[in-house]
Amino acid sequence: MASSPGGSTLTPAEVRMELHAQNRGKLVRCLRQRLAESSRPVHGFVLLQGGEEQNRYCTDHAELFRQESYFAYLFGVREPGFYGAIDISSGKSILFAPRLPEEYAVWMGKIKPLAYYKEYYMVDIVFYTDEIVEVLQNHCENPGKPLLFLLYGLNTDSGNHSKPAMIKEMEKFDTDLDVLHPVLTECRVLKSEMEIGLMQYANDISSEAHVEVMRKARVGMKEYQLESVFLHHVYMYGGCRHCSYTCVCATGENSAVLHYGHAAAPNDKTLIDGDMALFDMGAEYHFYGADITCSFPVNGIFSADQLLVYNAVLKAHDNVISCMKPGDSWIDMHKLAERTILESLKEGGLIQGDVDDMMVGRLGAVFMPHGLGHLIGIDTHDPGGYPKGLERPKEPGLKSLRTTRTLQEGLVITVEPGCYFIDALLVPAMEDPDKSKHFNCREISRFRGFGGVRIESNVLVTAEGCRNLTNCPRKTWEIEAVMAGAPWPPPPPATLSQNGGYR
Amino acid sequence: MASSPGGSTLTPAEVRMELHAQNRGKLVRCLRQRLAESSRPVHGFVLLQGGEEQNRYCTDHAELFRQESYFAYLFGVREPGFYGAIDISSGKSILFAPRLPEEYAVWMGKIKPLAYYKEYYMVDIVFYTDEIVEVLQNHCENPGKPLLFLLYGLNTDSGNHSKPAMIKEMEKFDTDLDVLHPVLTECRVLKSEMEIGLMQYANDISSEAHVEVMRKARVGMKEYQLESVFLHHVYMYGGCRHCSYTCVCATGENSAVLHYGHAAAPNDKTLIDGDMALFDMGAEYHFYGADITCSFPVNGIFSADQLLVYNAVLKAHDNVISCMKPGDSWIDMHKLAERTILESLKEGGLIQGDVDDMMVGRLGAVFMPHGLGHLIGIDTHDPGGYPKGLERPKEPGLKSLRTTRTLQEGLVITVEPGCYFIDALLVPAMEDPDKSKHFNCREISRFRGFGGVRIESNVLVTAEGCRNLTNCPRKTWEIEAVMAGAPWPPPPPATLSQNGGYR
Repeated sequence: MASSPGGSTLTPAEVRMELHAQNRGKLVRCLRQRLAESSRPVHGFVLLQGGEEQNRYCTDHAELFRQESYFAYLFGVREPGFYGAIDISSGKSILFAPRLPEEYAVWMGKIKPLAYYKEYYMVDIVFYTDEIVEVLQNHCENPGKPLLFLLYGLNTDSGNHSKPAMIKEMEKFDTDLDVLHPVLTECRVLKSEMEIGLMQYANDISSEAHVEVMRKARVGMKEYQLESVFLHHVYMYGGCRHCSYTCVCATGENSAVLHYGHAAAPNDKTLIDGDMALFDMGAEYHFYGADITCSFPVNGIFSADQLLVYNAVLKAHDNVISCMKPGDSWIDMHKLAERTILESLKEGGLIQGDVDDMMVGRLGAVFMPHGLGHLIGIDTHDPGGYPKGLERPKEPGLKSLRTTRTLQEGLVITVEPGCYFIDALLVPAMEDPDKSKHFNCREISRFRGFGGVRIESNVLVTAEGCRNLTNCPRKTWEIEAVMAGAPWPPPPPATLSQNGGYR
Repeated sequence: MASSPGGSTLTPAEVRMELHAQNRGKLVRCLRQRLAESSRPVHGFVLLQGGEEQNRYCTDHAELFRQESYFAYLFGVREPGFYGAIDISSGKSILFAPRLPEEYAVWMGKIKPLAYYKEYYMVDIVFYTDEIVEVLQNHCENPGKPLLFLLYGLNTDSGNHSKPAMIKEMEKFDTDLDVLHPVLTECRVLKSEMEIGLMQYANDISSEAHVEVMRKARVGMKEYQLESVFLHHVYMYGGCRHCSYTCVCATGENSAVLHYGHAAAPNDKTLIDGDMALFDMGAEYHFYGADITCSFPVNGIFSADQLLVYNAVLKAHDNVISCMKPGDSWIDMHKLAERTILESLKEGGLIQGDVDDMMVGRLGAVFMPHGLGHLIGIDTHDPGGYPKGLERPKEPGLKSLRTTRTLQEGLVITVEPGCYFIDALLVPAMEDPDKSKHFNCREISRFRGFGGVRIESNVLVTAEGCRNLTNCPRKTWEIEAVMAGAPWPPPPPATLSQNGGYR
């Protein structure tokens, strides 16, 4: 990665539409298997409706369009207004493009012929959206109404349901709303080599941008200025027009606000000497995203208290990553992170007593109310965290887990332990004798207003263990060195000058 | 403005909530007058519903919230989930804030007391949104059901209607859907001193960012890299998190695509030696926006053909601005721009014959299919372009006008003449004998693929004439000098060195 100020050694990764053809192939295989298992005939069409451009309220202000994620997964189409179908028996894919009015050419750009989309998106056939009914009827080789598999199911993070494709004359088709969503969601959980390639690139450019932010951070700046540095780096050098989510650029006590940065808390505090910064930012590249958090002292030097909290979280992060492998339970990983943090806080004198006791009392959730991590892919919170049969836990902390799956090769998940001092959680815990008995209240009260620390990497589960896709300075001396201008990643030992920034 | 590379001499403008209190005062005066004119009793409440945060499709990905514009005008509230009311008889303003759940404090930030909103937004009273019905009933001093004036009316740019506020137990109120929209829309048309102050600031930082883009433009770059330069400049130095609209960063033939830059044409061409660039970009600051276009040769030096087209458009831009004053018809200004461009194209040998003839034949619309400009304020296309009684023209070019109003002091409007070579318009015109008789086809065919030029400023109509809020290099030698590194705005003549970049 780059060490030149403001520049980058990365160039935008190649986007290959084979990726989506592979995704379609995987879906067809899985659907056929599912249908065969339930002794159902293997025919019919998958039909998905892509997203539409949205206007802001009643105005003609068009929001920048971003494709719906399931549609993006199967077809990779960046334009609004499309439909896509896959014939399950033949595996053939059909795109339906909107028929654009003549004045589109004046206002929006050249009207591309259907052949363009066929070649660019590597599908078998392309028609116009107003031909869907006719085309699906003509391509159906079975007697009776053609069967459409439509996407309808629960997103377990939002509680919302995906909307099945809407077409005219739906009465001319049979429809199945049950099979597609769980099968397609499960396809998205395990990533292909090509998907991993894009996620690695999103991580590379985002990691580099985080380093740039650390280098540019100065007492007296506004938080949003560092958001701007990040956004600029990933777009200017990385070609990433979208980010995975609104940047969290929290300093001081804001770093204890888990989803800081939204319109009601818009990254507008001034950086103050002695503040910790918690920056949770990730770029998206051709739909696939990164989700990375770095925590660092805004003045470039860790204080003793900052070292204590930071190293507690780093140890949890590193312990989890060195353990992770196929077959592990994500709940166990969460508990490992909690235990590691509690042990460190005990060593630091903030809490006292038996750590097993604390684990039973769910004390860890006072300091880390969120889950250890979530699936990531085309969505930042990628779906599939709770497939049918997997129950969400009810205990504090654990109930915030966005998945409790067993790890499998090909799954990409964030590892993001954190330790925060949140009044809304500390005050009630202080009043709960089961919890307060563990508190060294004088020590903890010193940390009121400290905020928090989170360290987040994106981790691919491999056959033997896992691979961290994120490459940011993590050890406190690496962070201090980078903030003082040392190159990142560090050059090989032989080339380090005697004045090299790394201890 | 700044001349230091990458920096700025601007600092984010002060935001004063008096601006919105004044807006409310203006609305109350106008509503009282309107009611009195129609002999209706002067009482009731204006009730508006603010915007809600939106998730992307079925996911929990929260889009960055931007307040609905009418609500922003009256209350200036940046947070989602609010309602606002104004008692027409007393003029008192009431905000209704969402009652946030306890876990908001953990995930989203401190829950602010109602008193915070009262002081910050300078309203008379604040309650929770679940108290609306009770509060409005209690504050109503007249017998019978309280009367609510709700916002319902057509946006003449989008063709969509604003959605009236929705509350429970609407049956406990009388409602009026007719009066508020036209009166409030009319209030927004003429800007106050404080509104003009914010729009001047949005123009200052956007003008400066355009200059930065010109300086950084190099053959071989991608269009989106210059979008990134603009976005970074206005956010980093200007505190502008939102832009007024998706940036149009068009080069070469893309510069003839009026709304280039959207997801299906995402500013992804490489800048080529000899290309013209047309960059239409504007920042928004506390809701108020700028909308500025600069056109320049990507290699920094105008060719003869580029000079011809550019100067035709600049002359139209300058002619309009030197004419504009209260009482002028905007249709006349549009025609003045068209005529100026046609005269220049005739001088340049592209077209031939009598310009009056061309005007009757609407030849100008072949080269400038869009309107000369639009109202601007909290929306880029600010509402009020066609109040009741004002008909949209039907002729080519004129029918694209977003307003045909007579100019009034306090109105801010874009002046954005353009000249484009658009195949979708040129080819049919060539086949229409009434138009093709004016074409010097050999000359014009040289410009196929040239793209187009637009020059756009934001102009305030004053008592005596107008004031251009935009300050970008416009003359071709100014652009060439700035692109070669000369300061902008130019230093006073005395300080110009003998090697100064300005001729």
